[in-house]
Amino acid sequence: MGRPMSRNLLGAGYKVVVHDIAPESVENAVAAGAERGESPKDVASRTDIIVTMLPDAADVEQVLMGPDGVLEGAGRGAIVIDMSSVSPIASQKFSAACEGKGVDFLDAPVSGGEPKAIDGTLAIMVGGRQEVLDQALPVLQAMGSTVTLTGPVGSGNVTKLANQIMVAGNIVAMGEALVLATRAGVDPEVVFNAVRVGLAGSTVLDAKAPMVYSRDFKPGGRISLHEKDLRNALHTAESFGVPLPFTSMAQQMMRALINTSRGDLDHSALVQFTEQLAQVEVKKG
Amino acid sequence: MGRPMSRNLLGAGYKVVVHDIAPESVENAVAAGAERGESPKDVASRTDIIVTMLPDAADVEQVLMGPDGVLEGAGRGAIVIDMSSVSPIASQKFSAACEGKGVDFLDAPVSGGEPKAIDGTLAIMVGGRQEVLDQALPVLQAMGSTVTLTGPVGSGNVTKLANQIMVAGNIVAMGEALVLATRAGVDPEVVFNAVRVGLAGSTVLDAKAPMVYSRDFKPGGRISLHEKDLRNALHTAESFGVPLPFTSMAQQMMRALINTSRGDLDHSALVQFTEQLAQVEVKKG
Repeated sequence: MGRPMSRNLLGAGYKVVVHDIAPESVENAVAAGAERGESPKDVASRTDIIVTMLPDAADVEQVLMGPDGVLEGAGRGAIVIDMSSVSPIASQKFSAACEGKGVDFLDAPVSGGEPKAIDGTLAIMVGGRQEVLDQALPVLQAMGSTVTLTGPVGSGNVTKLANQIMVAGNIVAMGEALVLATRAGVDPEVVFNAVRVGLAGSTVLDAKAPMVYSRDFKPGGRISLHEKDLRNALHTAESFGVPLPFTSMAQQMMRALINTSRGDLDHSALVQFTEQLAQVEVKKG
Repeated sequence: MGRPMSRNLLGAGYKVVVHDIAPESVENAVAAGAERGESPKDVASRTDIIVTMLPDAADVEQVLMGPDGVLEGAGRGAIVIDMSSVSPIASQKFSAACEGKGVDFLDAPVSGGEPKAIDGTLAIMVGGRQEVLDQALPVLQAMGSTVTLTGPVGSGNVTKLANQIMVAGNIVAMGEALVLATRAGVDPEVVFNAVRVGLAGSTVLDAKAPMVYSRDFKPGGRISLHEKDLRNALHTAESFGVPLPFTSMAQQMMRALINTSRGDLDHSALVQFTEQLAQVEVKKG
């Protein structure tokens, strides 16, 4: 995700200093016009707005608060925008650490995946103070088509977790529906065309049902990352004493697929959980 | 549903003979220009195409195969179109009974609910033979905007069950997402607006999220009828040896709400299951 996002920042005329543990990602960004940062600390000492996009909270903690981290380099008044999808509780912790150094913090996770990162049309869900967002807005608008302030720090990730629960629901139910239809002898493509215009219609159905019955599970959104989001949703829910039976079930289904080496498939491959239970494969007739 | 459907048939110029166990429904249709049928048998003896729209398979069986039923009155070459949402196994049984009398049968359940029944824009999912559908098509087109032949008898109801599983998934996950967001202090209307344009977008989300955070659960689609559909999906799945963990969970959630007198609420009120677990109410801020 960082690669297309940095390209869009360069395209909008920003000076961009990049760092990544994968050298080829840095080379790629440098070839596109970015400057090389030696460490998160080095990047932060050379920029006013520091954007992080990482797999999970442990990575963000390391990059912000670890040795040679962002907070060793960032000047007072700098803004850290963490665009990773992490637990909102982690966002609040990062914000407090930034505040201790006079640095402002926004959590700003995104929806839309790599295709919308490339197009610069991500949906960006922001948590933080309005006046901080006002300063960061042009940078975010270079990467996304909608930027929504959802509340104080952590709210962006609460909204992202809500988003991921809904996407999981739409995928799990689509999988069970297509498995039942296939097993009962109805072509899944016929089902798709009959129901997509009605109340069952969804962005997931339009984007993912053809992937399922064409057996094309190239990601898109990976099962391993979606599982992480649901796990974060369950941890967050637990901290509020909120039981989420469906989310829990969906996370366990994803976990089972990760355990059988399917974590890097698109999350539409969640249909394989039900297929395995039913011993049937959803394929167009 | 029968009332607006008969009005649309009258509007398309058909002679319509009606029967219902609710006298006010018959009076209403007669006032709109229909003829009164004394029994299903009487209706069948006066028409070539007999349409049934009933709560579940036991009602259809009574109307078709019971005393004074359709099959006592229908002539050879008549067509029975059962537009009820029932188990596909039941549809196959009704078809066999019709065949024994030289009567053709289509299962043709619908999606869209009363609003689309009134507009004549139902999505109609048909199971049966192409040449029977060819004869019945103008009648169906007077009630629906899309008429899809999905396969042999029973396929219409397989498709409808698949539809209802997907709608249930979208509703259950939306409920958990909004409960978590609300409990974590984010306004559910803000969440709705932030995510509806992304991968979480769906017809359910657009139609039902505002009902949830406005606390308006006037149906629309009733929990009691949706529960029946999921129960039929589970029976059908069981007949094929297909486990459907999500569908089973959703059916049980709906059953719990029926047990606490909420079966007549719109199915978006399924959010109340999670609200009760979490002791929180989803309301806009």
